[in-house]
Amino acid sequence: MVAAAREGQPRAVARLISMVEDESPALREVMAALAPHTGRAQVVGLTGSPGVGKSTSTNALVTRLRAAGKRVGVLAVDPSSPFSGGALLGDRIRMSDHASDAGVYIRSMAARGHLGGLAWSTPQAIRVLDAAGCDVVLVETVGVGQSEVEVAARADTTLVLLAPGMGDGIQAAKAGILEIGDVYVVNKADRDGADQVRRDLRGMLSMADRPAGAWRAPVVATVASSGDGVDEVVAELDRHHSWLHETGELRRRRTRRAREEVVAIAVTALRRSWGDVDGRSELDALAEAVAAGESDPYAAADRLLGAPAP
Amino acid sequence: MVAAAREGQPRAVARLISMVEDESPALREVMAALAPHTGRAQVVGLTGSPGVGKSTSTNALVTRLRAAGKRVGVLAVDPSSPFSGGALLGDRIRMSDHASDAGVYIRSMAARGHLGGLAWSTPQAIRVLDAAGCDVVLVETVGVGQSEVEVAARADTTLVLLAPGMGDGIQAAKAGILEIGDVYVVNKADRDGADQVRRDLRGMLSMADRPAGAWRAPVVATVASSGDGVDEVVAELDRHHSWLHETGELRRRRTRRAREEVVAIAVTALRRSWGDVDGRSELDALAEAVAAGESDPYAAADRLLGAPAP
Repeated sequence: MVAAAREGQPRAVARLISMVEDESPALREVMAALAPHTGRAQVVGLTGSPGVGKSTSTNALVTRLRAAGKRVGVLAVDPSSPFSGGALLGDRIRMSDHASDAGVYIRSMAARGHLGGLAWSTPQAIRVLDAAGCDVVLVETVGVGQSEVEVAARADTTLVLLAPGMGDGIQAAKAGILEIGDVYVVNKADRDGADQVRRDLRGMLSMADRPAGAWRAPVVATVASSGDGVDEVVAELDRHHSWLHETGELRRRRTRRAREEVVAIAVTALRRSWGDVDGRSELDALAEAVAAGESDPYAAADRLLGAPAP
Repeated sequence: MVAAAREGQPRAVARLISMVEDESPALREVMAALAPHTGRAQVVGLTGSPGVGKSTSTNALVTRLRAAGKRVGVLAVDPSSPFSGGALLGDRIRMSDHASDAGVYIRSMAARGHLGGLAWSTPQAIRVLDAAGCDVVLVETVGVGQSEVEVAARADTTLVLLAPGMGDGIQAAKAGILEIGDVYVVNKADRDGADQVRRDLRGMLSMADRPAGAWRAPVVATVASSGDGVDEVVAELDRHHSWLHETGELRRRRTRRAREEVVAIAVTALRRSWGDVDGRSELDALAEAVAAGESDPYAAADRLLGAPAP
């Protein structure tokens, strides 16, 4: 199956990503087999408030990348659905332009309330698409909030989308996206207020302290529905990727991503060993004692870690 | 200082919560001393989209609770500010009705990008306010998203705020708040569309599968700015608290909160031991090998945990 996935066979890729979503024990072997074949894909995170046109923009980007002969993977990640499961209705519909294109692999992922969460699953799903020969992996987050920002910031390049009429200046500042964008796109640029959003954004970005030689995030205007400006976005993504290569920042970012991936795997394994999944365990007894005021959380954590009481 | 905090001296309480925010090593002793004095406060989480009137509602609730002679602690938690730091402008201003009231303790908390995050700090801050004699601790989340929902859901009682004109039906479904609310409040009930929001909400809530004997979340209409309906909210909070007591659900929820608190402390201690804070460590070397494709994340996690390679 790993061999079939490496050849880019859609069914094998789908199976491997399902294994990631299901936290399959066999992933250990899969990841060991894939590891030597990773590191080729350009990983682009795409985030923004609801209504700015994330899926239309993703669709337009895929079209341009395909026209340039690139193989593309899309992960639509929904951090807000640990409770409700599948908030990704319309996923197939909206990407139907590319549904029959063998050079595009599209997949929705939800946190599903699993133990490891998206910090665990997203990098592993990226790893699968990377090893399957995707030149570009787009990680689109659905919704807005800290988790979304974190998922997008885990990419090589983070693309932040805004649009006029969303009160986006304040929202951007609140969500912390001014700190994470490598490329900013003001979509719906044919609408009233788009110029103002660009000016506000440039103003806010110019106020940030940036050391000499640091990347200066460009602001691109697009109308994703017509494709206007999308070529420029692709050009800026390439320019950023080159900059990442030249400065050694690419390696630094990927090491950071690998670091988070390793920590997530290790922490998840530990929590499983503590019985933090299926109830009745030492952890439950400790938590009950803490809730009753008979113990304190530090003493309980010590017990959990097998450390002697101080 | 612990003794002074238990007497409710504001400066001592402030110091202890600052120790939580700073992840002070001395917290271990503080929490051991506080543990026997916890478990009295009713912990209420308050969440909702931006613009529904969370701070006005908190303010109105505090007024009613104070009129009933209760001591109140307010934690305004901002999960979206690990990047930007202080998104809590206007915090003192909006709560200025209660600024000179010794029976109200108000505190803003941001994730600050610390290792443990809000899963680590929020329950410990609640613990301090509880031990300091607060009858009610209100945990208000600022912003919207999974983290906000999680923080609010960690309470004894979760109050979800909505308002007309926010497209809140869909937003509610997306953010998973239909699963977490114990009491729903439709604020700005004097505005057009409020009745529709109530109807939609009741309709969506009635479709949920609930076992016999389960709590049926009420929907209350308020105009927080004038205080209309707030007495009813307080009555529903009390009714839910009684239900929690009678059914044993209170103990179950508090055990779950203690469990998350213990796990967060244990995981944070481990990550610190792995050097996942200040760079240059075995973890960095492992992450570099994974990023370079020389190792896979599972093998690296095994090394981190000191397990023999399988």
